[in-house]
Amino acid sequence: MAEEYKYDFFNVSFPDEYVAHVEINRPEKLNAFTEVMWLNLSTIFRRLSHSPNTRAILLSGAGDRAFTSGLDVQAASTGATLNTTGSDAARAANAIKRHVYEFQACISDIEKCEKPVIAVLHGVSFGLALDMALACDIRISTTQTKFSIKEVDIGLAADIGTLSRLPKAVGNSSWVKDVALTARIFGSEEALRVGLVSNVCEDKAEAVAEALKVASLIASKSPVATMGTKELLNYSRDHSVADGLAYTAIWNAAMIQTQDVKDAVMSGLQKRKPTFSKL
Amino acid sequence: MAEEYKYDFFNVSFPDEYVAHVEINRPEKLNAFTEVMWLNLSTIFRRLSHSPNTRAILLSGAGDRAFTSGLDVQAASTGATLNTTGSDAARAANAIKRHVYEFQACISDIEKCEKPVIAVLHGVSFGLALDMALACDIRISTTQTKFSIKEVDIGLAADIGTLSRLPKAVGNSSWVKDVALTARIFGSEEALRVGLVSNVCEDKAEAVAEALKVASLIASKSPVATMGTKELLNYSRDHSVADGLAYTAIWNAAMIQTQDVKDAVMSGLQKRKPTFSKL
Amino acid sequence: MAEEYKYDFFNVSFPDEYVAHVEINRPEKLNAFTEVMWLNLSTIFRRLSHSPNTRAILLSGAGDRAFTSGLDVQAASTGATLNTTGSDAARAANAIKRHVYEFQACISDIEKCEKPVIAVLHGVSFGLALDMALACDIRISTTQTKFSIKEVDIGLAADIGTLSRLPKAVGNSSWVKDVALTARIFGSEEALRVGLVSNVCEDKAEAVAEALKVASLIASKSPVATMGTKELLNYSRDHSVADGLAYTAIWNAAMIQTQDVKDAVMSGLQKRKPTFSKL
Amino acid sequence: MAEEYKYDFFNVSFPDEYVAHVEINRPEKLNAFTEVMWLNLSTIFRRLSHSPNTRAILLSGAGDRAFTSGLDVQAASTGATLNTTGSDAARAANAIKRHVYEFQACISDIEKCEKPVIAVLHGVSFGLALDMALACDIRISTTQTKFSIKEVDIGLAADIGTLSRLPKAVGNSSWVKDVALTARIFGSEEALRVGLVSNVCEDKAEAVAEALKVASLIASKSPVATMGTKELLNYSRDHSVADGLAYTAIWNAAMIQTQDVKDAVMSGLQKRKPTFSKL
Amino acid sequence: MAEEYKYDFFNVSFPDEYVAHVEINRPEKLNAFTEVMWLNLSTIFRRLSHSPNTRAILLSGAGDRAFTSGLDVQAASTGATLNTTGSDAARAANAIKRHVYEFQACISDIEKCEKPVIAVLHGVSFGLALDMALACDIRISTTQTKFSIKEVDIGLAADIGTLSRLPKAVGNSSWVKDVALTARIFGSEEALRVGLVSNVCEDKAEAVAEALKVASLIASKSPVATMGTKELLNYSRDHSVADGLAYTAIWNAAMIQTQDVKDAVMSGLQKRKPTFSKL
Amino acid sequence: MAEEYKYDFFNVSFPDEYVAHVEINRPEKLNAFTEVMWLNLSTIFRRLSHSPNTRAILLSGAGDRAFTSGLDVQAASTGATLNTTGSDAARAANAIKRHVYEFQACISDIEKCEKPVIAVLHGVSFGLALDMALACDIRISTTQTKFSIKEVDIGLAADIGTLSRLPKAVGNSSWVKDVALTARIFGSEEALRVGLVSNVCEDKAEAVAEALKVASLIASKSPVATMGTKELLNYSRDHSVADGLAYTAIWNAAMIQTQDVKDAVMSGLQKRKPTFSKL
Repeated sequence: MAEEYKYDFFNVSFPDEYVAHVEINRPEKLNAFTEVMWLNLSTIFRRLSHSPNTRAILLSGAGDRAFTSGLDVQAASTGATLNTTGSDAARAANAIKRHVYEFQACISDIEKCEKPVIAVLHGVSFGLALDMALACDIRISTTQTKFSIKEVDIGLAADIGTLSRLPKAVGNSSWVKDVALTARIFGSEEALRVGLVSNVCEDKAEAVAEALKVASLIASKSPVATMGTKELLNYSRDHSVADGLAYTAIWNAAMIQTQDVKDAVMSGLQKRKPTFSKL
Repeated sequence: MAEEYKYDFFNVSFPDEYVAHVEINRPEKLNAFTEVMWLNLSTIFRRLSHSPNTRAILLSGAGDRAFTSGLDVQAASTGATLNTTGSDAARAANAIKRHVYEFQACISDIEKCEKPVIAVLHGVSFGLALDMALACDIRISTTQTKFSIKEVDIGLAADIGTLSRLPKAVGNSSWVKDVALTARIFGSEEALRVGLVSNVCEDKAEAVAEALKVASLIASKSPVATMGTKELLNYSRDHSVADGLAYTAIWNAAMIQTQDVKDAVMSGLQKRKPTFSKL
Repeated sequence: MAEEYKYDFFNVSFPDEYVAHVEINRPEKLNAFTEVMWLNLSTIFRRLSHSPNTRAILLSGAGDRAFTSGLDVQAASTGATLNTTGSDAARAANAIKRHVYEFQACISDIEKCEKPVIAVLHGVSFGLALDMALACDIRISTTQTKFSIKEVDIGLAADIGTLSRLPKAVGNSSWVKDVALTARIFGSEEALRVGLVSNVCEDKAEAVAEALKVASLIASKSPVATMGTKELLNYSRDHSVADGLAYTAIWNAAMIQTQDVKDAVMSGLQKRKPTFSKL
Repeated sequence: MAEEYKYDFFNVSFPDEYVAHVEINRPEKLNAFTEVMWLNLSTIFRRLSHSPNTRAILLSGAGDRAFTSGLDVQAASTGATLNTTGSDAARAANAIKRHVYEFQACISDIEKCEKPVIAVLHGVSFGLALDMALACDIRISTTQTKFSIKEVDIGLAADIGTLSRLPKAVGNSSWVKDVALTARIFGSEEALRVGLVSNVCEDKAEAVAEALKVASLIASKSPVATMGTKELLNYSRDHSVADGLAYTAIWNAAMIQTQDVKDAVMSGLQKRKPTFSKL
Repeated sequence: MAEEYKYDFFNVSFPDEYVAHVEINRPEKLNAFTEVMWLNLSTIFRRLSHSPNTRAILLSGAGDRAFTSGLDVQAASTGATLNTTGSDAARAANAIKRHVYEFQACISDIEKCEKPVIAVLHGVSFGLALDMALACDIRISTTQTKFSIKEVDIGLAADIGTLSRLPKAVGNSSWVKDVALTARIFGSEEALRVGLVSNVCEDKAEAVAEALKVASLIASKSPVATMGTKELLNYSRDHSVADGLAYTAIWNAAMIQTQDVKDAVMSGLQKRKPTFSKL
Repeated sequence: MAEEYKYDFFNVSFPDEYVAHVEINRPEKLNAFTEVMWLNLSTIFRRLSHSPNTRAILLSGAGDRAFTSGLDVQAASTGATLNTTGSDAARAANAIKRHVYEFQACISDIEKCEKPVIAVLHGVSFGLALDMALACDIRISTTQTKFSIKEVDIGLAADIGTLSRLPKAVGNSSWVKDVALTARIFGSEEALRVGLVSNVCEDKAEAVAEALKVASLIASKSPVATMGTKELLNYSRDHSVADGLAYTAIWNAAMIQTQDVKDAVMSGLQKRKPTFSKL
């Protein structure tokens, strides 16, 4: 299966039944992202989204030093996108708009993926690290993780998702403004306290192991139930409770008809592990 | 007054002036819910909502073992609603849609109740326990409470409110996804840390006592002021700040004309307890 | 510069480059607000918003006893606004509506200010204190701060912003209802736990010093980047993630063209502090 | 079947297969509405909504003179609801709020009815006539229909639905303001031009016949398809196109599985009239 | 009364009881707008909004040739606002943003005015003419009116309101795109057909007379009822029907308590003209 | 240029400077759509969207008989998508959901295209014809066009856009329900009256000529101005006026800096045709 997912800067493996592991693989550059990387990331998650063999996904970085240090600023600055010299400001703006739309869409493909995604934030987790992690469903970090919303330090407001998703992911808007406006580095204790992560492990190895355990647990459930749970929680974040309830009713009108409900209930009564058809 | 509220599976009492206590009363089945129960629950809260003798409400479960273990799955699986065998999938979906709408509406009647509602989550608090508790205003638990969003374990996404209200009630979206996708059991320490409850008491007795104290305090305030506070906070959860401010101004344009403002201010100056007309 | 900001009840100073400090100055009345004060507050923040010499703002109260005890109830009750005796209820309602709209707009001018605002909540911080603090970006308090959403104690639902902004600022809706419905006084430990503040200092002096440090740090960044970060976070609070991303792309289409990006990147490579043009 | 629908002021008949006809029956009072009438109206439409024997509904008034002249003002003014003398303005406001909510909900039950509803607006069609007609799906009138949004003439803004639904039903906001602010009487030519009705017949008899023809045509289609079409159009009116598309996809994910699709396609190829199972 | 409204480029008169007439008065320049003019316009409408002596307002242009030809492009191009040469594109963008916000707010003050406003569109009605007219409530034109959304002809998308309000004011989105994208001149026949105006008169004199008649009619109604009708229609345009109904209920909870209801009903029964207190 | 756009079922030509013409080319099947066709359509419009050589686009059907008869039902019914026999209803629903999402996205690419698109609706224009036409900006038809929202006749609610876009495109919700619920065929007179099209020509040749004239006119304007006009009108359809104004201000903050404004103003003064840089 892994052969279908061959990319220069990503390792994709299947460490457990129905569990995929996507590893950002450019450790010599702290897993910094170039354009080809976010395009590949998008392709990987779009494919896993529809893969019948995947029910939960891990996302981590190769090497011990970083989940990712974010955008490869050097590569970006020599790229064509922002070289708008000579162009009029409106045409430059349009080129930037197209570029940002495309970049955002690639990262949002993690959120749109039908299967739950668990981010293991270890080591340096700057800039794009947070854009990506916030598009994931569950965030786990380590005692050594160094977080930063780095963008103001290069003169811009973060535009690939952090500023749109963070206020809805954590429960302290004062803290959100603090870290977003100062770009200061913070650690896992703080991240856990404000609700950015839900679990802090001793080190990367332990965090990956923990994430794998959670992923395997999710993968053992009905894929209809977990897909629905992810979708309905994402929908509710962006809609009123009334809209959320209505959408839920329509969603389950189809999904509750699954054989999985009968299988799950029966397995529960018989104290055995159910087996669910592929999705 | 309590005589007006006679139901097989609910005890309704009035432990203090303007305070009602609704107790789910099916302890031999861990207070599991059948259809008649949520229909009765709705009736009770719709009546209390307009009762001039009620200004705050407690909701708890009878017995020591459970607030509620949730839906009575056995009863549900033998019921007519989901027996859609032979029907075509669209007609089955429509029957399910009607059923879910009605069930949701019953639970939402707690939220629509004009008077603040305090849930005492003790013992087993699974599935529907959270749907109901999240429709309440204040949540108190005990050191022994066992919480679980149990639905994925029976093959479905929770559809009676938890997935719509939980993301807006707590401040850790990673934790929300974790507990909703894994159905794992968690305790009060975790619930307090992420913001699902605002107070943890030693045991059920203490929690009920504490909830009664809070209810009595709320009941001593102007019922115009507390009704407005509940309504405006619920409204703001589902709207932009701009919309919230506009709605608030219109609301108070009428409500601030109450005699209660003058009475409350005067009582404050005279250091005595005010008395407010019935609402 | 400070001469441009002369008001009876506000001190405006400039303690560091690009940093303004607005101090509520009516300490003998616990900095309680009369109508002229919120009108002046609005003028000050509208001016600072467009001032090229300001990039971050502190808001605190004069004296040790209070940030502010809130509305000057005595002044309000003798004012013309709410003296609607004899008027019919609809005309009274319209007069109140106009008054509340204007009052809300003055406080919202803090939120609309292009520059980040840091509130130092010290001593008594009741009622309007929270309306104002929630319109600020970052909230810091002290071990002695006494918070209260006081409004229900004078017979009304808070209508100047607290009920609209608080549910989106913190991550515990049960706690929000608890403090809003009971008007009980709470301290900084609780405020930090639920996410109302992001930092608690020993006392007012230390809190002002800390706030100044944060303000100076923010003021050292690109003003284009910090303005955008504030704006995009505020926008995202009130919109879906999809809308947030689209607005962000359009915003940055113009703003990323700033010379500040090049200056910031270059300064970063050269390990020196960048200088940014006025905004 | 008609026996199940016995009410003093409504005639319910079934003039064609799967077609119900609801007639407001108080012709001696120009079909003016009292409270019991809108409560009964709600009951009728809630029942028809789930009736497997109904696929389209006509709504008209008994007698030649009026669809309805609206609220029975005399009855309303002697009723308890608005007699708030002596009460404080806030408590009066709360009583009014409860009353308006209930009244609105009754009329909205026409809109929530799963089956399409065709209003035949004939003769006097004032005030509540428009609130009701706008909650219907299709509006037909006659050359003699007299329309008026009458409410400003009794000192109030229409509050049972006209002001919320009219701006989204027609395509001339200047006209909407004109007729709503002046309460002037207008006729069918104008109603057709601005889009309030979609068909004008010579007289009531012809309009009822035409409405019956349309109802019978709708009733001959798949009830799954027509229910969905009504629901999705109503949903889209109140949501963005993006939200409308997403909801549509989820809706049809279940509904397109109906046997009706195969039957309809097959019947089309075979040039015969299909028969669809009950819904 | 008219003395309170003295401006170089506006005539304000009071042609009937409770009726104000605002005339754009720069006929030698086809009533083209400079910055001082929209600032004055805002002041006039904010004042009339709260004036107890005004219940309906006419807006027209002085002279026979134009309502207004729109922005005075020559004045604008020599003004400071858009002279951003040498500035970086982000700082220029911020200056433009501030300018557009302020300009939009001035025009929106017509919409926010509590009293209904009737625009008489005569002669040349280009660009800003439509931005303004769309912020009015009722639009009347003449057989000679020449309309154009002129902005694309000077290289920009209209940004003072036309593109935001037009799609919600008329019922032909294809036509909206046609006239907005081509800037072609169109006449009243077309304007009436698509719903941009609700009445076309022979010439300006007749249109002003007609508008005055409508204004006087509106001014004869309860000012509580007409204010509410305007507000609720504007609110509903921008919200779902469900939100519109809820807001309406809260609005009328206060407003329906007015003495005007009793006076209007009584006058109706007694067939005499009611007199309403000032608002 | 046309060589870049070679597809079996589409002709793409460039009949005028900056004007592209996309022709659906399967006349022997009344231009009915198969899956490959909507995938190709999407590719064509995504490419034209970013093409510097295109400023306006025509969409029409090859041959005289049809714009398109809609989905090729025969092809669809033998395709894999809806063959869900044996699958459980939830898994079938998920397969359908994915399919509908993809199909909708392809058609929405017409709407997302930066350049204005003019649909020429001639001959048979059923089902998908309306989904597509409603995603276009301007709709022109002929005296012989036959329109139908055909979907209920094959047992389903239209799900590729018509039900989401139509209620916002025309100004007669009663008519919308009528044609969507009955699937009846209607003509151009009716389409023009309700606002579905903005122009009716004698026959296809004349309609294509007229559309080309409009396209050429649009193509002669600043591409920055027309792109913005399209985008802001689409945005405003889906948002409140307040949101529309804010988005407009940010959009123009960049776009108004274009050299095109100066060129357009100067050309206007000099009465010559301006030339604009490519976009």
